[in-house]
Amino acid sequence: MERPRHQGMAKNTYMRWRLPLVCLLWEVAMIVLFGVFVRFSPEADAHWEEEKREMNLTSDIENDFYFRYPSFQDVHVMIFVGFGFLMTFLKRYGFGAVGFNFLLAAFGIQWALLMQGWFHSFKSGKILIGVENLINADFCVGSACIAFGAILGKTSPVQLLLLTLFQVTLFAVNEYILLNLLHVKDAGGSMTIHTFGAYFGLTVTRILYRPNLEQSKDKQGSVYHSDLFAMIGTLYLWMYWPSFNSAISEHGDAQHRAAINTYCSLAACVLTTVAFSSMLQKKGKLDMVHIQNATLAGGVAVGTSAEMMLTPYGSLIVGFICGIVSTVGYVYLTPFLESRLHIQDTCGIHNLHAMPGLIGGIVGAITAAAATEEVYGKEGFIKAFDFTGAYQTRTPSVQGGFQAAGIVVSLLMAFAGGALVGAILKLPIWGDAAAENCFEDDVYWEV
Amino acid sequence: MERPRHQGMAKNTYMRWRLPLVCLLWEVAMIVLFGVFVRFSPEADAHWEEEKREMNLTSDIENDFYFRYPSFQDVHVMIFVGFGFLMTFLKRYGFGAVGFNFLLAAFGIQWALLMQGWFHSFKSGKILIGVENLINADFCVGSACIAFGAILGKTSPVQLLLLTLFQVTLFAVNEYILLNLLHVKDAGGSMTIHTFGAYFGLTVTRILYRPNLEQSKDKQGSVYHSDLFAMIGTLYLWMYWPSFNSAISEHGDAQHRAAINTYCSLAACVLTTVAFSSMLQKKGKLDMVHIQNATLAGGVAVGTSAEMMLTPYGSLIVGFICGIVSTVGYVYLTPFLESRLHIQDTCGIHNLHAMPGLIGGIVGAITAAAATEEVYGKEGFIKAFDFTGAYQTRTPSVQGGFQAAGIVVSLLMAFAGGALVGAILKLPIWGDAAAENCFEDDVYWEV
Amino acid sequence: MERPRHQGMAKNTYMRWRLPLVCLLWEVAMIVLFGVFVRFSPEADAHWEEEKREMNLTSDIENDFYFRYPSFQDVHVMIFVGFGFLMTFLKRYGFGAVGFNFLLAAFGIQWALLMQGWFHSFKSGKILIGVENLINADFCVGSACIAFGAILGKTSPVQLLLLTLFQVTLFAVNEYILLNLLHVKDAGGSMTIHTFGAYFGLTVTRILYRPNLEQSKDKQGSVYHSDLFAMIGTLYLWMYWPSFNSAISEHGDAQHRAAINTYCSLAACVLTTVAFSSMLQKKGKLDMVHIQNATLAGGVAVGTSAEMMLTPYGSLIVGFICGIVSTVGYVYLTPFLESRLHIQDTCGIHNLHAMPGLIGGIVGAITAAAATEEVYGKEGFIKAFDFTGAYQTRTPSVQGGFQAAGIVVSLLMAFAGGALVGAILKLPIWGDAAAENCFEDDVYWEV
Repeated sequence: MERPRHQGMAKNTYMRWRLPLVCLLWEVAMIVLFGVFVRFSPEADAHWEEEKREMNLTSDIENDFYFRYPSFQDVHVMIFVGFGFLMTFLKRYGFGAVGFNFLLAAFGIQWALLMQGWFHSFKSGKILIGVENLINADFCVGSACIAFGAILGKTSPVQLLLLTLFQVTLFAVNEYILLNLLHVKDAGGSMTIHTFGAYFGLTVTRILYRPNLEQSKDKQGSVYHSDLFAMIGTLYLWMYWPSFNSAISEHGDAQHRAAINTYCSLAACVLTTVAFSSMLQKKGKLDMVHIQNATLAGGVAVGTSAEMMLTPYGSLIVGFICGIVSTVGYVYLTPFLESRLHIQDTCGIHNLHAMPGLIGGIVGAITAAAATEEVYGKEGFIKAFDFTGAYQTRTPSVQGGFQAAGIVVSLLMAFAGGALVGAILKLPIWGDAAAENCFEDDVYWEV
Repeated sequence: MERPRHQGMAKNTYMRWRLPLVCLLWEVAMIVLFGVFVRFSPEADAHWEEEKREMNLTSDIENDFYFRYPSFQDVHVMIFVGFGFLMTFLKRYGFGAVGFNFLLAAFGIQWALLMQGWFHSFKSGKILIGVENLINADFCVGSACIAFGAILGKTSPVQLLLLTLFQVTLFAVNEYILLNLLHVKDAGGSMTIHTFGAYFGLTVTRILYRPNLEQSKDKQGSVYHSDLFAMIGTLYLWMYWPSFNSAISEHGDAQHRAAINTYCSLAACVLTTVAFSSMLQKKGKLDMVHIQNATLAGGVAVGTSAEMMLTPYGSLIVGFICGIVSTVGYVYLTPFLESRLHIQDTCGIHNLHAMPGLIGGIVGAITAAAATEEVYGKEGFIKAFDFTGAYQTRTPSVQGGFQAAGIVVSLLMAFAGGALVGAILKLPIWGDAAAENCFEDDVYWEV
Repeated sequence: MERPRHQGMAKNTYMRWRLPLVCLLWEVAMIVLFGVFVRFSPEADAHWEEEKREMNLTSDIENDFYFRYPSFQDVHVMIFVGFGFLMTFLKRYGFGAVGFNFLLAAFGIQWALLMQGWFHSFKSGKILIGVENLINADFCVGSACIAFGAILGKTSPVQLLLLTLFQVTLFAVNEYILLNLLHVKDAGGSMTIHTFGAYFGLTVTRILYRPNLEQSKDKQGSVYHSDLFAMIGTLYLWMYWPSFNSAISEHGDAQHRAAINTYCSLAACVLTTVAFSSMLQKKGKLDMVHIQNATLAGGVAVGTSAEMMLTPYGSLIVGFICGIVSTVGYVYLTPFLESRLHIQDTCGIHNLHAMPGLIGGIVGAITAAAATEEVYGKEGFIKAFDFTGAYQTRTPSVQGGFQAAGIVVSLLMAFAGGALVGAILKLPIWGDAAAENCFEDDVYWEV
């Protein structure tokens, strides 16, 4: 109390040259790389009339834009408003939550367009982008927003930009291994987005462990109105999650089915979250932390299987379980991780993304392994798992095995990548605040 | 003042076992019933390729998903953010407003999928669900959100779950009578959602009358920021109402027309609301209660007729009238209902849903009765009112009569159902708070 | 300090008769004019089945509703939530920001449907409206919302309704000159919406110059939570801007391309805004004013060219520049305009709309002038610039010249119109507050 308030400012948090330098350097790099590589896909190019003739399309409505643009906008809202506002629960870190999320996501989507483009949309030396690329870029950045949740309030914007650069890169590599090498299905990203993003972030925060963080403990809580701002984030994530899980599924029944499964899982998840939030508290009162977060676990956990024939009641079961797992995690696991394993997880992403992501990977593997031609129909079966070309002879149980392998690969990539990035961020040159100034907007913002 | 603050807690509001029990029991019931009954509709099922061939569809874009999914998401936002935040105006009940609305709606949509499914989507022993079912489930739950508005701040979450269970059940019965037996049109739900929901809620709050409620009067107001949170709810309801009224209309012109009519009605309603809000106040200042609520009455009141040939100027007239009726209701009727009829209507749903809902039913009956083949075209006329099969010979004036009958049936169902549910909720075992603790989040929430 | 707080109330701000009178008069006028003129377009009319046959359409999905409705809803959110909440940053003017924006926009869209209808959708004595008209009406009103930003907190609601009436009228005239007489492309409205709206508003605020405004200087700042409310507005504008710029482009590739270009420009703009916000501050801290506003300049500045073959890297360059220009404007230009030119620009629309709008017009002119058949394809070239009929022989460089002329016309219309409207608003009969009561909700609202 006697100490000057910003004594920790001895740690140099002065951003005036470092932050502009990084922002400008990277944006110039983006312009150069976009100039060399990025062009419009045929459906967004002015040559579309010729394309239409070639592909025998009779109407503009066949343009992929009309299949995916509404879902894209919903996903866009989830990344910027959903994640941004979900993290405003801290009483004095609302600017950092919304503002830094905005910054890292705006940078990340550009880099993701390039990274994912090189792997998936590269033709004759150019990356050809359309609405599906925009969705995938948002997805990729989603994993960085998740990791941000673990280190919220403890890092400088420069560190966040570094984290995003590396994480997007590794995301694209991991995604390539899963989707192209292992031929795994993961349209809603239980493995590629949530499992990878969360364990990456948890590894980073472990390495950045701050032994004296209790010095800013009073700021690590919420106030009444900050909890309401956070509920804006929660609800937009919850409502639009059916769009998230269906956004890049195949046209037609797969998109339709993914939305329904996700809707069901999320509905069930709310009920068990409320039940356990009340049950695990001595006074039986509800805790906003659980309502804000654990209600979303059901969306994470059907990320792989939503486009499969999981069925509505299967989705309810997954949501039921995840509401419980996630709420129990907030009550018992988060304190344990902090005190014993030195994992300081500001937003509890372990409960919202890591565990439900793992469950989602497993549910996906089981659902794939259990697939039959009877349930999917002959054509539907081949279409759902893309059992064509080199994969013509793959059986459901083998697919299930590869799905499981995808979980393991995602975990390994997360641990290795998180360790590397954590080590880089630990260098004392990036301008993070001292422990007693964490969770405090006025370190980096004019307040 | 001398009394201990929570003396009323003598009324046992301890939720630790009751709330979890109800949540878990009902969710388990949902899983079992979904397991027995619910499957995907052909458009969401993996057999879609075969379906497409059978129905001679040449493109995936013909899947109902692409006709209705954007509207579904708008309706979804209205239910969870719209209703949830509209009710956050109370200074110390924001958690309850958003959180309990979230809980009851998440449960309600599951039960609605079943109830409405048995009536409308039951084939060979299974309920086949697609995106239209999701919209209808949201609609059904909307009526429970409306009723919640009347009792906001005065009931426990257990009571709200009970209310939702019964109300969704009766909603489905009432809807079946109107749509299938009376062959009535009500795509935006002036009768089925608003009239039914509002009079149901008003009956419940009448039965739960609390003579000592003035003990918590100081908490029944708003503060500056809580009014801004409420405006988020207002605006999302207002902006997306065109989607609400057009979401389940026939493909093509009907959806298009319903959106335009609703847009017009709502625009006019804002002007008369502002006019009367200022005029009825001695100081001529605007009252946020009116702006938050009465501006929406225009959407309610074209719920039945929006898909008909109401025409844009007809819509302006309806909106014009409803802004006035609703604002006058807030100023004069709400106090009268409370003091004389003992109807304590926290959000003023009588002004926002009940009266405009009745007007909407009447406007629908008149518009139907006035329909001519000249205005609709020969095919359009038959399509608009579904005058096929057993209804081939029904005339517009007869249709108008049946529409009017629909209003009466909805009212009777609301009064009877509300009385029944009110009586059940009055039992002293559900954990509602004492009068002096109403409108106070810390009864059920960790604050 | 000694003075009674509302001494300035000597200026009569009593709205009880003036505001209701204006609202009711104008709404009645709307009803009469809609009754005489407005009907449904063929795609929203019940005769659609016949239309479909005539136009050889095989599916309802060909109805323009399905091409544009999702974009319409996004634009609608931008106008009402985007602009409304963006302006809630003032500590005591949240009601006025959201509420008056709501009022003027709800009136403006009706008048815009008429004005734009007479110019563009008038057939056999009737204005035929469909979803594209709704979007255009929202666009038109957007220019009034922009002008409102300059005079925020300093005008009465009656003045705002007058401003909207005149501005919508002049907007429609200007738009007619540009689109029909000059045959200029401006789908996202860099010229018609932003340049025109901003310079119109700046001229008005110049004429309404208040020499004693520093008396309310303490209220002209933000508080912590008001800045978070403003970020809701910012993010919705930012996220949905791709819909704004693509909403009325040609079906197919043009809509698709416009969305991608806008997405890219906005992403780049965030990086340079952050860079310069930090760099121009001695302490290197970020300023919420910049993050809330300058991040959006990239959307404004590709308003004309987004549907052209600007290419993703071209968009990045535009966004890069605009983030810098806009942020520098907030730091240096706004104080200069106020102190030297007596332009009191509450929201800094000069930095967010005026300068980026001009840049947008210029970028559009250059992009058009640089167009080649090689880049667009033979058909794409004609389609993109509508080089048919009387314009069959127009060359890209001539088109570029006309685009540039469009900027000049928009500026002249803005200055002339703004001067006229400013002079009218200056009459001492409209009930604006005294300088010391500016930026204070309780002048016009029950607080």
